[in-house]
Order: sequence, then structure tokens, then C-alpha cells
Amino acid sequence: MSLPLRGYTILDLTHVLAGPFCTQILSDMGAEIIKVERPGIGDDTRAFPPFKDKKSAYFAGLNHGKKSIALDLHADDDKAIFERLLDRADVLVENFRPGVLERLGYGWEAVHARFPQIVYGAVSGFGHTGPDAKRPAYDMVVQARGGVMSITGEKGREPVRVGASIGDIVAGMFLCQGILAALLDRQRSGKGRKIDVAMLDSQLAILEHAVAITSITGKPPVPSGARHPTITPFETFHASDGLFVIAAGNDKLFEKLCVALQLPLAQDERFATNPARCENARLLKRLIEAVTLDQTRAHWIAKLTNAGIPTGPIQDVGQVMKDPQILARNMVVDVLDKYGRTAFKAAGNPIKMSDCPDLPTRPPAPDLDGNRAEILRWLEKG
Amino acid sequence: MSLPLRGYTILDLTHVLAGPFCTQILSDMGAEIIKVERPGIGDDTRAFPPFKDKKSAYFAGLNHGKKSIALDLHADDDKAIFERLLDRADVLVENFRPGVLERLGYGWEAVHARFPQIVYGAVSGFGHTGPDAKRPAYDMVVQARGGVMSITGEKGREPVRVGASIGDIVAGMFLCQGILAALLDRQRSGKGRKIDVAMLDSQLAILEHAVAITSITGKPPVPSGARHPTITPFETFHASDGLFVIAAGNDKLFEKLCVALQLPLAQDERFATNPARCENARLLKRLIEAVTLDQTRAHWIAKLTNAGIPTGPIQDVGQVMKDPQILARNMVVDVLDKYGRTAFKAAGNPIKMSDCPDLPTRPPAPDLDGNRAEILRWLEKG
Repeated sequence: MSLPLRGYTILDLTHVLAGPFCTQILSDMGAEIIKVERPGIGDDTRAFPPFKDKKSAYFAGLNHGKKSIALDLHADDDKAIFERLLDRADVLVENFRPGVLERLGYGWEAVHARFPQIVYGAVSGFGHTGPDAKRPAYDMVVQARGGVMSITGEKGREPVRVGASIGDIVAGMFLCQGILAALLDRQRSGKGRKIDVAMLDSQLAILEHAVAITSITGKPPVPSGARHPTITPFETFHASDGLFVIAAGNDKLFEKLCVALQLPLAQDERFATNPARCENARLLKRLIEAVTLDQTRAHWIAKLTNAGIPTGPIQDVGQVMKDPQILARNMVVDVLDKYGRTAFKAAGNPIKMSDCPDLPTRPPAPDLDGNRAEILRWLEKG
Repeated sequence: MSLPLRGYTILDLTHVLAGPFCTQILSDMGAEIIKVERPGIGDDTRAFPPFKDKKSAYFAGLNHGKKSIALDLHADDDKAIFERLLDRADVLVENFRPGVLERLGYGWEAVHARFPQIVYGAVSGFGHTGPDAKRPAYDMVVQARGGVMSITGEKGREPVRVGASIGDIVAGMFLCQGILAALLDRQRSGKGRKIDVAMLDSQLAILEHAVAITSITGKPPVPSGARHPTITPFETFHASDGLFVIAAGNDKLFEKLCVALQLPLAQDERFATNPARCENARLLKRLIEAVTLDQTRAHWIAKLTNAGIPTGPIQDVGQVMKDPQILARNMVVDVLDKYGRTAFKAAGNPIKMSDCPDLPTRPPAPDLDGNRAEILRWLEKG
């Protein structure tokens, strides 16, 4: 039993979301994360609500098991410590505005020249190249400019934001992949590389069918509410007590659905193929709901599941955190405080691996500069 | 100049989205992807619209640069070829329903016993453990059950689906991270591992603030339309010619915004802090739009950008694909056909790496079984 990234040390200069999300994944897989924070303030998210015992649950969810040292990268003493850390670490991760670390003398070229083993991972709003490289960005700016808002929401109404901050999160995940690939490459070359991930680029990278449709038809897709744009039926339906989802992704599943609902539509030319079903989607939805409105969500989810049809509830986050499948997968973990008591609940590690511990608890998130002595001792050991 | 994953061979049994998205990332970083498909039909997405010259743009966007061999894993001859491939490959990736490969004799235990070097990556709807392991799932089922739909959409209206298929895509990205970490670990252990990623787990893993809020307050968040739930102003605003985004994430940015809009609100106690601004968000939005409605989006985006305030347009996918920053980052690439002509446009690789080619074109997506002879020759070479 061992974590796959044990023994790797990540020097983490990141704050807020994209960078800390990336290094949290690396931490959950066993890497040692040394979080280098601004003296006095530290990561902004230490001040993000909600709080428990004056500690931020948001910060804890993104930084558990990491170590913290506060360093002023303008001060010579602290720069000396930082450079000893660079000498020992495998990876440097940063999400400053492009140019910030260069001005401090720690841009890619300078770091690579002195510490060639360092894999240098950078995530920023627009990347380190291009006309907008220096512009500030937040999640919402790249969700809007990157296209996902234009296909999310109800047709004919104003676009909506994706409720999760996928502008940051997806970029942090691509950065994580680049860092791991560069570490693999380093085993052969002995040299680190720079990885430059932009939040805006990352949004385009997840649009899949929307890019295909736009490039072939010239017509960008519009929001389709709770429906899949090109598969029918693949949407929400009303039962007697609320909404649930049916996703009949092919003709065979649609035939099974017709049997389960006692609707003789599988041979009807208006519904026999997916293109025909998309053509007549509104009528089909009314016909299906004419049946589903008679019984509860639980009734239909059980019945359709037994028939092998993909279906399920629409759950709020409280329900998700109590979902038996989620609990069976250890996907809600307890983040401990320094006394070993449960302080917060957080999402578990979705990367389940053989011969690898997947504990139900996580070590605490660090106090600002809370591991300074320990980190300095580790440097002494040389 | 070299791709970081050159020399790694991935045996890819996946179809549709989550798996192919994962192996497309590995391919873009230099791994050799051998796509093993069902004879006759192959990957379902070969039949997904839109088409050009009878080829699916959707399939091309997720499978360019991969090689294809059609194997019937029920037939002894093809099983023999498959096992010679297992002997040579570094990674096996699959997204069948749990149990399918076990029945064919290629479950994790069997493969690990005979081919210990193989990293075995599996992605499925609910994972390989837990009460719902065997249930079928599609993107929409896990978006609904996994909670993201409950925080996406307009307050008081029905939840909407995220327009991009993040149920599949995020799971494919976590799988990619697990595979790369297991390959790093293999350098020390000499042994592969199994990675088991569930689409449902992966949805919970990206909810960040929603998990923190729910665990502390007990109240799951609700959709907040185009607003950030806990930061104000961080939403869309009307200009004279349509909507644009302002994301003033902290007090300093709000002060700059007030100066740029000539709105003397920075010292007003109703708006001086983010909690106060959240409290009075509706009033603040009306006050800001009272000003922004007088000029165009372009005017405000230029003015606020010059003032250092995160802002931007809401672009449709066609506009994103022509965005100067996107083009400067080589984020729209040409997928070639076998004659070297541009066949499709696709999203580029968002993982930009030093000393690494980032070509503006991509090799073709393979015809079904199109690389059989070449793959068999490679096996002969032993």
C-alpha cells in the first residue's frame, strides 16, 4: 500500500482556486506540498466564508495535508530559503499574473538555468503569450468569453454561469496533467519543463460537440436548458413529485423505455430514430410526461433502472453528500483539525487506485507559516 | 523539441467521450494511442453528427492522431493479437460497464497477473465498487445526480444542464491524472496499478464552494443565474448593445470599478465590503447598469480593462474560435485527412509546454481498422 506520488516535493506558490485545486490532486496522490504564502495574509481564501472556529471551510477543502511557510520574496533572507527549497523540490507551481515572478527573479528562464530539475507549472487567465497575456481574469470572465455560458441556460433567456467554477478547475486539472507528463519526461531527460496553462484555452478545450457543430455548420449552438442538444430523449421529466432525468442515448434504450412506459412509440416513424426524435422532441416530451406524471420520481427511477435505462434524480449538494454510492466510494472525507477532531467535510479523491490507501480522513489544512520550523529542519538535513 | 510522452503506448478500448477525451490528452502529449474497436461498427461516435465527407467531426475531434485496429475479443485469433499488444503496451484504458472486460478474461486481476507492467485505467458512470456499480450512466445522469445541475440555472426556475458534457470530460481528466501518476510510480515499482474513476465521484470533486457551504451551514446552495453566489459584483451587466461580464473580486477592484464608472459607492457602507455588496446586490446591479446602459459593451470592456478590472464579453462558440487570444495560443487546430488536406477544425492542446512542438495541424482520425497492417508489423518487430 503506497501513494503513487510519495517522495515528490511540490513548491506551491498558488492561491485561490486553479493552482490549489491542482496541487490538492497531487497531494491526494501522495506528493508533499509546501505552500509558500505571503507573510501576514497568505492565500486569500483563508478569508473566504463559510468559517468554523474562525477557519475557512473553503480553504480547508483545497489545502488539506499541505504545509505552509510564509516567505517575502522581496526580502533577501526569505529569498535564500526559497532558493534552498527550489534546490530540493521537483515542481514549482504558480498562478500569478504573467510577469510577477519574472520581476522577482524567479521566471522560468532564471529558475531553469539554476535549478534544471524543476518542473515549472504556471496557470493564468489567458496564458503567458498572446495579446491578452497580462490581463486579469476570474472564473466568470473565462466562462463568458470561453463559450460555455453561451450554451448553458434556457433557450431565449439570458445565459447563466456554470454553478461550479469550471473556469478555474478545468485549468488546474490540465496543469496537473502537464506537470505529471513533464515529471515522466524528466526521468529520461533529467530536465524540467515549463507548463503554461490558460483558463481561457481550457474552456475551449472542453466544448467538444459545440466546436464540431460550429466548425461544420458555421452555426454556433445555443443553450438547450436541461436537454442534450443532439440526443433525444436525454433530459429532465416531471413525475408526480418533481423532476428526474431519463437519458436514452440510443434506439435500443428508447425501445426499452417505450416498453417500460407502455408507450407504443418505438416503431412510430416520428420517433423511430434519434434524428426523428430530435425533430419531434417537444411532442415526445409531452407524451412521456403524460405517463410519468402519474407516479413518483422514486417509482420511475426504480422501474427504469430495472429496465436498464440510464435515469436518476436531480440532487442538491446536501443529497449528493449523503448519496449511498458516494459514501460507498469514500467521496466525502473528514478534514481533521490539529487535535485530530473532524473540522470540515470535503470531497474525497476521485482517483481510486489499487494498492493505494484511500483514508476517510484528511490531515488539517495548514495555519499560515505553520510548518516553518519543520520545513527549515528538512532543509538542514540536506 | 520533443513531446513528453513519446515512447509510451496506450491500448485504448474506450468509446464515446470520457475515455477518448482522456486518451486524446495523452496523444496530444506524445503517447501512441492504439484504439481497439469492435469490428464493423467501432466507436459509436463515428456515427455522431455533424459529418463532412461522411466522416464525423465529433469523432475526429476526440480521436485525431490515434491508430485503429478492429478486434473481436470473443475470437481466439483476435484475442491472441490483443494479448501481444498487452505485452507491448504501457497502459490499458477502458470505459465499459464494470464486469464486461472481466467476462472476456481481461479484468484487472487477470491482466495484472500476466502483464504486470500494464497501468489499467477504467472510467465508468458509478465506479467499480458500491451498490450502483453496475448501473448505466450518461453525462446527464451524473450532472443531475452529482449536484452541478442543482446550482446551475436561474433562481426559482428549473435547473439546467451544463452545456459542455462535464460529466464525462472531468472524469476523463481525473483518469488521465491517475494514469500519469501510476506511470511515474511504475518507474520505481516496476508494476502497474488499476485506476478506477467514476463520473459521479468526479462531479462531487468539482463542487468546491458548494461542498464547503453545505457542510458548514447545512443549506445546499441554489442556482444563482449569471452571478457568483458569494462575490459581488461578479456577474453579467447590460450595456447599450447587450450583456458583458464584470468580475470585481475584491474591495480594491470594486474601488477601481467605482472610479471607472464614476459611481461614488466605494465608501458607501451598503457597498464598502463584499458581504455588504452581496446583501445589496440587486440595488448595486441596478446602479451599475444605470451607467453601463449608456455605452456599448466594447466601450466598457476597453475602459474597465484599462482600469485593470477583470471584464469581458459573452462569446458564442463561433466567436471563441476566432478570438485573437485563442488563435495566438494555437487553440484551434486543423485536423487533416489522409491526403493532408484540412478536414476539420478542433480544439488545440491547452497544455503548452517548453521545448515541445505545438503544431497547428493534427494527423487524421483513423478509419475503423485502418492501421491493422502497421500495428501487426510493429508486433512482428518484437
